[in-house]
Amino acid sequence: MATFKLYGDRLSGNCYKVQLLCALLHVNYAWVPVNILAGDTRVASFLEKNPNGKIPLLELDDGRTLSESNAIINYLAHGSALLPTEPFALAKVQQWQFFEQYSHEPYIAVARFIAKYFGLPAERRAEYDAKQKGGHKALAVMEQQLQRSRYMAGDTLTTADVSLFAYTHVADEGGFSLEHYPAIGAWIDRIKALPDFIAMGA
Amino acid sequence: MATFKLYGDRLSGNCYKVQLLCALLHVNYAWVPVNILAGDTRVASFLEKNPNGKIPLLELDDGRTLSESNAIINYLAHGSALLPTEPFALAKVQQWQFFEQYSHEPYIAVARFIAKYFGLPAERRAEYDAKQKGGHKALAVMEQQLQRSRYMAGDTLTTADVSLFAYTHVADEGGFSLEHYPAIGAWIDRIKALPDFIAMGA
Ligand SMILES: N[C@@H](CCC(=O)N[C@@H](CS)C(=O)NCC(=O)O)C(=O)O
Ligand SMILES: N[C@@H](CCC(=O)N[C@@H](CS)C(=O)NCC(=O)O)C(=O)O
Repeated sequence: MATFKLYGDRLSGNCYKVQLLCALLHVNYAWVPVNILAGDTRVASFLEKNPNGKIPLLELDDGRTLSESNAIINYLAHGSALLPTEPFALAKVQQWQFFEQYSHEPYIAVARFIAKYFGLPAERRAEYDAKQKGGHKALAVMEQQLQRSRYMAGDTLTTADVSLFAYTHVADEGGFSLEHYPAIGAWIDRIKALPDFIAMGA
Repeated sequence: MATFKLYGDRLSGNCYKVQLLCALLHVNYAWVPVNILAGDTRVASFLEKNPNGKIPLLELDDGRTLSESNAIINYLAHGSALLPTEPFALAKVQQWQFFEQYSHEPYIAVARFIAKYFGLPAERRAEYDAKQKGGHKALAVMEQQLQRSRYMAGDTLTTADVSLFAYTHVADEGGFSLEHYPAIGAWIDRIKALPDFIAMGA
Protein backbone atom coordinates (compact mmCIF):
# COMPACT_ATOMS: atom_id res chain seq x y z
CA MET A 1 0.00 0.00 0.00
CA ALA A 2 1.39 3.39 -1.04
CA THR A 3 1.65 5.96 1.71
CA PHE A 4 -1.00 8.65 1.61
CA LYS A 5 -2.46 11.80 3.08
CA LEU A 6 -5.80 11.82 4.84
CA TYR A 7 -7.71 15.12 4.85
CA GLY A 8 -10.09 15.13 7.77
CA ASP A 9 -11.59 16.73 10.86
CA ARG A 10 -11.25 14.93 14.21
CA LEU A 11 -14.85 15.83 15.06
CA SER A 12 -16.26 14.02 12.01
CA GLY A 13 -17.54 10.46 12.35
CA ASN A 14 -17.05 9.86 8.63
CA CYS A 15 -13.35 10.71 9.08
CA TYR A 16 -13.16 8.61 12.24
CA LYS A 17 -14.12 5.54 10.19
CA VAL A 18 -10.84 5.91 8.30
CA GLN A 19 -8.81 6.67 11.41
CA LEU A 20 -10.21 3.61 13.20
CA LEU A 21 -9.66 1.34 10.20
CA CYS A 22 -6.05 2.51 9.90
CA ALA A 23 -5.48 1.92 13.62
CA LEU A 24 -6.91 -1.61 13.44
CA LEU A 25 -4.79 -2.43 10.38
CA HIS A 26 -1.63 -0.58 11.49
CA VAL A 27 -1.66 1.60 8.38
CA ASN A 28 0.38 4.80 8.53
CA TYR A 29 -0.67 8.07 6.93
CA ALA A 30 -0.16 11.81 7.12
CA TRP A 31 -3.13 13.63 8.65
CA VAL A 32 -4.09 16.95 7.04
CA PRO A 33 -6.51 18.85 9.28
CA VAL A 34 -9.51 20.42 7.57
CA ASN A 35 -11.91 22.65 9.51
CA ILE A 36 -15.41 22.20 8.07
CA LEU A 37 -17.05 24.86 10.22
CA ALA A 38 -14.43 27.39 9.02
CA GLY A 39 -15.23 26.56 5.39
CA ASP A 40 -12.02 24.72 4.50
CA THR A 41 -13.95 22.27 2.28
CA ARG A 42 -15.31 25.10 0.13
CA VAL A 43 -12.03 26.70 -1.00
CA ALA A 44 -10.78 26.16 -4.56
CA SER A 45 -7.66 24.23 -3.57
CA PHE A 46 -9.80 21.66 -1.73
CA LEU A 47 -12.52 21.50 -4.40
CA GLU A 48 -9.83 20.66 -6.94
CA LYS A 49 -9.11 17.52 -4.95
CA ASN A 50 -12.76 16.71 -4.18
CA PRO A 51 -15.32 18.54 -6.33
CA ASN A 52 -18.03 17.33 -3.94
CA GLY A 53 -16.38 19.36 -1.16
CA LYS A 54 -16.43 16.75 1.55
CA ILE A 55 -14.06 15.01 3.93
CA PRO A 56 -12.67 12.43 4.46
CA LEU A 57 -10.47 12.57 1.40
CA LEU A 58 -7.52 10.29 0.70
CA GLU A 59 -4.66 11.52 -1.51
CA LEU A 60 -2.07 9.06 -2.77
CA ASP A 61 1.57 10.00 -3.31
CA ASP A 62 1.00 10.21 -7.06
CA GLY A 63 -1.79 12.76 -6.57
CA ARG A 64 -4.77 10.47 -7.19
CA THR A 65 -7.63 11.15 -4.78
CA LEU A 66 -10.47 9.08 -3.35
CA SER A 67 -13.51 10.40 -1.49
CA GLU A 68 -16.41 8.74 0.38
CA SER A 69 -15.55 7.24 3.74
CA ASN A 70 -16.83 3.76 2.93
CA ALA A 71 -15.03 3.57 -0.41
CA ILE A 72 -11.83 4.67 1.35
CA ILE A 73 -12.00 2.06 4.11
CA ASN A 74 -12.79 -0.74 1.68
CA TYR A 75 -9.81 0.33 -0.43
CA LEU A 76 -7.49 0.37 2.57
CA ALA A 77 -8.85 -2.96 3.86
CA HIS A 78 -8.36 -4.69 0.50
CA GLY A 79 -6.48 -7.94 1.11
CA SER A 80 -6.99 -7.83 4.89
CA ALA A 81 -9.20 -9.96 7.15
CA LEU A 82 -11.62 -7.03 7.43
CA LEU A 83 -12.85 -7.37 3.84
CA PRO A 84 -14.16 -10.75 2.67
CA THR A 85 -13.32 -11.89 -0.84
CA GLU A 86 -16.17 -14.39 -1.28
CA PRO A 87 -18.69 -12.50 -3.48
CA PHE A 88 -21.83 -12.85 -1.35
CA ALA A 89 -20.01 -12.04 1.88
CA LEU A 90 -18.49 -8.98 0.20
CA ALA A 91 -21.94 -7.96 -1.05
CA LYS A 92 -23.30 -8.15 2.50
CA VAL A 93 -20.55 -5.79 3.69
CA GLN A 94 -21.56 -3.34 0.98
CA GLN A 95 -25.27 -3.78 1.75
CA TRP A 96 -24.66 -2.59 5.31
CA GLN A 97 -22.45 0.27 4.14
CA PHE A 98 -25.11 1.56 1.72
CA PHE A 99 -27.67 1.14 4.51
CA GLU A 100 -25.38 3.25 6.69
CA GLN A 101 -25.17 6.06 4.15
CA TYR A 102 -28.86 6.05 3.19
CA SER A 103 -30.86 4.94 6.23
CA HIS A 104 -28.61 5.61 9.25
CA GLU A 105 -26.13 8.50 8.86
CA PRO A 106 -28.65 11.06 7.49
CA TYR A 107 -30.71 10.62 10.67
CA ILE A 108 -28.29 9.80 13.47
CA ALA A 109 -25.24 11.82 12.39
CA VAL A 110 -27.33 14.82 11.40
CA ALA A 111 -29.35 14.88 14.67
CA ARG A 112 -26.08 14.62 16.59
CA PHE A 113 -24.53 17.43 14.55
CA ILE A 114 -27.49 19.72 15.27
CA ALA A 115 -27.40 18.93 18.99
CA LYS A 116 -23.65 18.73 19.61
CA TYR A 117 -22.23 21.41 17.35
CA PHE A 118 -25.11 23.87 17.20
CA GLY A 119 -26.51 23.27 20.70
CA LEU A 120 -29.98 22.38 19.35
CA PRO A 121 -31.14 25.91 18.50
CA ALA A 122 -34.92 26.52 18.37
CA GLU A 123 -34.93 27.01 14.58
CA ARG A 124 -33.50 23.51 14.01
CA ARG A 125 -35.69 21.76 16.60
CA ALA A 126 -38.26 20.54 14.03
CA GLU A 127 -35.51 19.12 11.81
CA TYR A 128 -33.93 17.43 14.84
CA ASP A 129 -37.28 15.94 15.89
CA ALA A 130 -37.93 14.72 12.35
CA LYS A 131 -34.67 12.72 12.46
CA GLN A 132 -35.65 10.66 15.52
CA LYS A 133 -38.03 8.23 13.83
CA GLY A 134 -35.64 7.33 11.00
CA GLY A 135 -32.74 6.98 13.43
CA HIS A 136 -34.65 4.57 15.66
CA LYS A 137 -35.76 2.60 12.62
CA ALA A 138 -32.11 2.17 11.60
CA LEU A 139 -31.12 1.14 15.12
CA ALA A 140 -33.94 -1.43 15.21
CA VAL A 141 -32.70 -2.94 11.93
CA MET A 142 -29.16 -3.15 13.35
CA GLU A 143 -30.42 -4.65 16.63
CA GLN A 144 -32.25 -7.39 14.73
CA GLN A 145 -29.08 -8.29 12.80
CA LEU A 146 -26.90 -8.21 15.92
CA GLN A 147 -29.29 -10.56 17.71
CA ARG A 148 -28.33 -13.06 14.99
CA SER A 149 -24.64 -12.48 14.37
CA ARG A 150 -21.74 -11.10 16.41
CA TYR A 151 -20.90 -8.51 13.77
CA MET A 152 -23.02 -6.76 11.14
CA ALA A 153 -22.04 -8.93 8.19
CA GLY A 154 -21.52 -12.22 10.04
CA ASP A 155 -19.37 -13.62 12.79
CA THR A 156 -16.22 -11.68 12.07
CA LEU A 157 -15.40 -7.98 12.09
CA THR A 158 -15.55 -6.27 8.68
CA THR A 159 -15.46 -2.74 7.33
CA ALA A 160 -19.28 -2.72 7.67
CA ASP A 161 -18.79 -2.65 11.43
CA VAL A 162 -16.31 0.21 11.18
CA SER A 163 -18.82 2.13 9.02
CA LEU A 164 -21.72 1.64 11.40
CA PHE A 165 -19.77 1.97 14.64
CA ALA A 166 -18.74 5.56 13.91
CA TYR A 167 -22.09 7.23 14.52
CA THR A 168 -23.87 4.42 16.41
CA HIS A 169 -21.58 4.54 19.43
CA VAL A 170 -22.28 8.27 19.86
CA ALA A 171 -25.98 8.07 18.89
CA ASP A 172 -26.95 9.23 22.39
CA GLU A 173 -25.42 12.62 21.50
CA GLY A 174 -28.16 12.88 18.86
CA GLY A 175 -30.89 11.98 21.33
CA PHE A 176 -30.97 8.23 20.61
CA SER A 177 -30.78 6.30 23.85
CA LEU A 178 -29.35 2.83 23.23
CA GLU A 179 -30.88 1.24 26.32
CA HIS A 180 -33.51 -0.64 24.32
CA TYR A 181 -30.90 -2.06 21.95
CA PRO A 182 -28.96 -4.59 24.04
CA ALA A 183 -27.31 -6.37 21.10
CA ILE A 184 -26.03 -3.03 19.79
CA GLY A 185 -24.66 -2.27 23.25
CA ALA A 186 -22.79 -5.59 23.38
CA TRP A 187 -21.43 -5.03 19.84
CA ILE A 188 -20.16 -1.57 20.82
CA ASP A 189 -18.38 -3.06 23.84
CA ARG A 190 -16.86 -5.77 21.64
CA ILE A 191 -15.48 -3.20 19.21
CA LYS A 192 -14.13 -0.96 21.98
CA ALA A 193 -12.28 -4.00 23.36
CA LEU A 194 -10.48 -4.75 20.08
CA PRO A 195 -6.68 -4.57 20.25
CA ASP A 196 -5.58 -1.26 18.66
CA PHE A 197 -9.04 0.33 19.03
CA ILE A 198 -8.82 4.12 19.11
CA ALA A 199 -11.51 6.46 20.38
CA MET A 200 -13.19 9.14 18.26
CA GLY A 201 -11.61 12.58 18.52
CA ALA A 202 -8.20 11.07 19.31
CA MET B 1 -24.41 -17.40 -10.76
CA ALA B 2 -27.40 -19.01 -9.03
CA THR B 3 -30.82 -18.05 -10.34
CA PHE B 4 -32.72 -15.62 -8.14
CA LYS B 5 -35.84 -13.60 -7.52
CA LEU B 6 -35.87 -9.83 -7.73
CA TYR B 7 -38.50 -8.02 -5.68
CA GLY B 8 -39.15 -4.63 -7.22
CA ASP B 9 -41.46 -1.97 -8.60
CA ARG B 10 -41.13 -0.91 -12.23
CA LEU B 11 -41.58 2.73 -11.24
CA SER B 12 -38.53 2.71 -8.95
CA GLY B 13 -35.19 3.92 -10.24
CA ASN B 14 -33.37 1.92 -7.57
CA CYS B 15 -35.00 -1.24 -8.96
CA TYR B 16 -34.29 -0.14 -12.52
CA LYS B 17 -30.55 -0.19 -11.74
CA VAL B 18 -30.80 -3.95 -11.21
CA GLN B 19 -33.04 -4.50 -14.24
CA LEU B 20 -30.64 -2.54 -16.48
CA LEU B 21 -27.58 -4.34 -15.13
CA CYS B 22 -29.21 -7.72 -15.73
CA ALA B 23 -30.14 -6.73 -19.28
CA LEU B 24 -26.60 -5.56 -20.05
CA LEU B 25 -25.13 -8.78 -18.65
CA HIS B 26 -27.84 -11.16 -19.95
CA VAL B 27 -28.66 -12.36 -16.47
CA ASN B 28 -32.03 -14.09 -16.02
CA TYR B 29 -34.20 -13.73 -12.94
CA ALA B 30 -37.78 -14.02 -11.74
CA TRP B 31 -39.44 -10.65 -11.16
CA VAL B 32 -41.68 -10.36 -8.09
CA PRO B 33 -43.76 -7.18 -8.27
CA VAL B 34 -44.00 -5.13 -5.08
CA ASN B 35 -46.28 -2.10 -4.90
CA ILE B 36 -44.68 0.48 -2.61
CA LEU B 37 -47.58 2.92 -2.66
CA ALA B 38 -49.93 0.09 -1.61
CA GLY B 39 -47.68 -0.69 1.38
CA ASP B 40 -46.29 -4.03 0.18
CA THR B 41 -42.88 -3.25 1.72
CA ARG B 42 -44.41 -2.83 5.18
CA VAL B 43 -46.06 -6.24 5.58
CA ALA B 44 -44.48 -8.87 7.85
CA SER B 45 -43.70 -11.35 5.08
CA PHE B 46 -41.62 -8.70 3.27
CA LEU B 47 -39.99 -7.33 6.43
CA GLU B 48 -38.79 -10.84 7.21
CA LYS B 49 -36.82 -10.74 3.98
CA ASN B 50 -35.67 -7.13 4.35
CA PRO B 51 -36.04 -5.67 7.85
CA ASN B 52 -35.31 -2.23 6.35
CA GLY B 53 -38.52 -2.55 4.27
CA LYS B 54 -37.10 -1.43 0.94
CA ILE B 55 -36.87 -2.63 -2.62
CA PRO B 56 -34.98 -3.73 -4.65
CA LEU B 57 -34.39 -7.00 -2.86
CA LEU B 58 -32.63 -10.01 -4.29
CA GLU B 59 -33.45 -13.50 -3.01
CA LEU B 60 -31.26 -16.44 -3.93
CA ASP B 61 -32.62 -19.94 -4.43
CA ASP B 62 -31.29 -20.99 -1.03
CA GLY B 63 -33.25 -18.19 0.65
CA ARG B 64 -30.39 -15.79 1.31
CA THR B 65 -31.35 -12.18 0.65
CA LEU B 66 -29.46 -9.04 -0.34
CA SER B 67 -30.77 -5.48 -0.24
CA GLU B 68 -29.40 -2.10 -1.40
CA SER B 69 -29.44 -1.53 -5.13
CA ASN B 70 -25.73 -0.77 -5.42
CA ALA B 71 -24.66 -3.80 -3.40
CA ILE B 72 -26.92 -5.96 -5.58
CA ILE B 73 -25.54 -4.72 -8.89
CA ASN B 74 -21.94 -5.07 -7.73
CA TYR B 75 -22.70 -8.63 -6.64
CA LEU B 76 -24.28 -9.50 -9.98
CA ALA B 77 -21.47 -7.79 -11.92
CA HIS B 78 -18.75 -9.68 -10.04
CA GLY B 79 -16.37 -11.19 -12.57
CA SER B 80 -17.77 -9.17 -15.50
CA ALA B 81 -16.26 -6.26 -17.42
CA LEU B 82 -18.57 -3.88 -15.55
CA LEU B 83 -16.70 -4.25 -12.27
CA PRO B 84 -12.94 -3.63 -12.22
CA THR B 85 -10.77 -5.87 -10.08
CA GLU B 86 -7.78 -3.50 -9.70
CA PRO B 87 -8.22 -2.10 -6.15
CA PHE B 88 -8.08 1.64 -6.91
CA ALA B 89 -10.37 1.34 -9.95
CA LEU B 90 -12.81 -0.67 -7.84
CA ALA B 91 -12.63 1.96 -5.10
CA LYS B 92 -13.52 4.69 -7.63
CA VAL B 93 -16.62 2.73 -8.67
CA GLN B 94 -17.66 2.56 -5.02
CA GLN B 95 -16.83 6.25 -4.49
CA TRP B 96 -19.37 7.19 -7.16
CA GLN B 97 -21.95 4.76 -5.81
CA PHE B 98 -21.71 6.19 -2.29
CA PHE B 99 -21.87 9.67 -3.84
CA GLU B 100 -25.06 8.54 -5.62
CA GLN B 101 -26.68 7.37 -2.42
CA TYR B 102 -25.63 10.32 -0.28
CA SER B 103 -25.36 13.38 -2.51
CA HIS B 104 -27.51 12.60 -5.57
CA GLU B 105 -30.48 10.25 -4.97
CA PRO B 106 -31.81 12.02 -1.83
CA TYR B 107 -32.19 15.21 -3.91
CA ILE B 108 -32.95 14.15 -7.47
CA ALA B 109 -34.97 10.98 -6.87
CA VAL B 110 -36.94 12.53 -4.02
CA ALA B 111 -37.80 15.72 -5.98
CA ARG B 112 -38.90 13.55 -8.89
CA PHE B 113 -41.01 11.36 -6.61
CA ILE B 114 -42.80 14.40 -5.16
CA ALA B 115 -43.46 15.84 -8.62
CA LYS B 116 -44.21 12.69 -10.59
CA TYR B 117 -46.09 10.50 -8.12
CA PHE B 118 -47.73 13.11 -5.92
CA GLY B 119 -48.22 15.82 -8.54
CA LEU B 120 -46.24 18.41 -6.54
CA PRO B 121 -48.90 19.18 -3.92
CA ALA B 122 -48.72 22.57 -2.17
CA GLU B 123 -47.75 21.01 1.18
CA ARG B 124 -44.63 19.40 -0.31
CA ARG B 125 -43.58 22.43 -2.38
CA ALA B 126 -41.04 23.67 0.21
CA GLU B 127 -39.45 20.22 0.45
CA TYR B 128 -39.32 20.01 -3.36
CA ASP B 129 -37.73 23.46 -3.63
CA ALA B 130 -35.19 22.56 -0.93
CA LYS B 131 -34.02 19.61 -3.07
CA GLN B 132 -33.09 21.72 -6.09
CA LYS B 133 -29.80 23.13 -4.82
CA GLY B 134 -28.38 19.75 -3.74
CA GLY B 135 -29.51 18.14 -6.97
CA HIS B 136 -27.79 20.73 -9.11
CA LYS B 137 -24.66 20.43 -6.99
CA ALA B 138 -24.59 16.68 -7.66
CA LEU B 139 -25.13 17.22 -11.37
CA ALA B 140 -22.29 19.76 -11.49
CA VAL B 141 -19.95 17.25 -9.83
CA MET B 142 -20.94 14.62 -12.41
CA GLU B 143 -20.56 17.08 -15.30
CA GLN B 144 -17.02 17.90 -14.18
CA GLN B 145 -16.09 14.21 -14.11
CA LEU B 146 -17.72 13.51 -17.48
CA GLN B 147 -15.80 16.39 -19.06
CA ARG B 148 -12.68 14.35 -18.19
CA SER B 149 -13.70 10.73 -18.80
CA ARG B 150 -16.27 8.99 -20.99
CA TYR B 151 -17.79 7.17 -18.03
CA MET B 152 -18.01 8.04 -14.34
CA ALA B 153 -15.13 5.88 -13.15
CA GLY B 154 -12.92 6.11 -16.24
CA ASP B 155 -13.07 5.27 -19.91
CA THR B 156 -15.16 2.13 -19.65
CA LEU B 157 -18.69 1.48 -18.44
CA THR B 158 -18.96 0.22 -14.85
CA THR B 159 -21.70 -0.34 -12.29
CA ALA B 160 -21.12 3.27 -11.16
CA ASP B 161 -22.68 4.40 -14.46
CA VAL B 162 -25.65 2.09 -13.96
CA SER B 163 -26.12 3.53 -10.44
CA LEU B 164 -25.99 7.15 -11.56
CA PHE B 165 -27.86 6.72 -14.83
CA ALA B 166 -31.07 5.55 -13.12
CA TYR B 167 -32.18 8.90 -11.71
CA THR B 168 -29.99 11.24 -13.77
CA HIS B 169 -31.64 10.42 -17.09
CA VAL B 170 -35.05 11.32 -15.64
CA ALA B 171 -33.81 14.27 -13.56
CA ASP B 172 -35.98 16.63 -15.63
CA GLU B 173 -39.02 14.96 -14.03
CA GLY B 174 -37.76 16.34 -10.72
CA GLY B 175 -37.33 19.84 -12.14
CA PHE B 176 -33.64 19.53 -13.07
CA SER B 177 -33.10 20.64 -16.63
CA LEU B 178 -29.99 19.00 -18.06
CA GLU B 179 -29.39 21.64 -20.75
CA HIS B 180 -26.45 23.18 -18.91
CA TYR B 181 -24.77 19.79 -18.47
CA PRO B 182 -23.61 18.83 -21.97
CA ALA B 183 -21.25 16.08 -20.88
CA ILE B 184 -24.03 14.45 -18.89
CA GLY B 185 -26.26 14.65 -21.97
CA ALA B 186 -23.64 12.93 -24.13
CA TRP B 187 -23.11 10.24 -21.47
CA ILE B 188 -26.86 9.56 -21.30
CA ASP B 189 -26.95 9.16 -25.09
CA ARG B 190 -23.96 6.81 -24.94
CA ILE B 191 -25.67 4.59 -22.36
CA LYS B 192 -28.97 4.56 -24.24
CA ALA B 193 -27.06 3.38 -27.33
CA LEU B 194 -25.53 0.37 -25.55
CA PRO B 195 -26.46 -3.01 -27.02
CA ASP B 196 -29.10 -4.62 -24.74
CA PHE B 197 -30.03 -1.27 -23.13
CA ILE B 198 -33.55 -1.35 -21.71
CA ALA B 199 -35.64 1.68 -20.78
CA MET B 200 -36.98 2.40 -17.29
CA GLY B 201 -40.50 1.13 -16.69
CA ALA B 202 -40.07 -1.69 -19.19
N1 LIG C 1 -20.87 10.43 2.05
C1 LIG C 1 -19.72 11.09 2.57
C2 LIG C 1 -20.17 12.12 3.58
C3 LIG C 1 -19.03 12.97 4.05
C4 LIG C 1 -19.51 14.19 4.80
O1 LIG C 1 -20.70 14.49 4.87
N2 LIG C 1 -18.52 14.89 5.34
C5 LIG C 1 -18.81 16.07 6.10
C6 LIG C 1 -18.10 16.01 7.42
S1 LIG C 1 -18.70 14.65 8.41
C7 LIG C 1 -18.31 17.28 5.32
O2 LIG C 1 -17.24 17.23 4.71
N3 LIG C 1 -19.07 18.35 5.29
C8 LIG C 1 -18.69 19.56 4.65
C9 LIG C 1 -19.64 19.95 3.57
O3 LIG C 1 -20.51 19.15 3.18
O4 LIG C 1 -19.50 21.10 3.13
C10 LIG C 1 -18.74 10.12 3.21
O5 LIG C 1 -19.19 9.06 3.68
O6 LIG C 1 -17.54 10.38 3.18
N1 LIG D 1 -30.71 2.71 -0.48
C1 LIG D 1 -31.73 1.89 -1.05
C2 LIG D 1 -32.95 2.73 -1.31
C3 LIG D 1 -34.11 1.90 -1.76
C4 LIG D 1 -35.41 2.66 -1.69
O1 LIG D 1 -35.48 3.80 -1.18
N2 LIG D 1 -36.43 2.02 -2.23
C5 LIG D 1 -37.74 2.62 -2.25
C6 LIG D 1 -38.30 2.52 -3.66
S1 LIG D 1 -37.32 3.46 -4.83
C7 LIG D 1 -38.63 1.86 -1.28
O2 LIG D 1 -38.57 0.65 -1.19
N3 LIG D 1 -39.46 2.59 -0.54
C8 LIG D 1 -40.40 2.01 0.35
C9 LIG D 1 -40.17 2.42 1.76
O3 LIG D 1 -39.12 3.02 2.07
O4 LIG D 1 -41.07 2.14 2.58
C10 LIG D 1 -31.26 1.24 -2.35
O5 LIG D 1 -30.39 1.82 -3.01
O6 LIG D 1 -31.72 0.14 -2.67
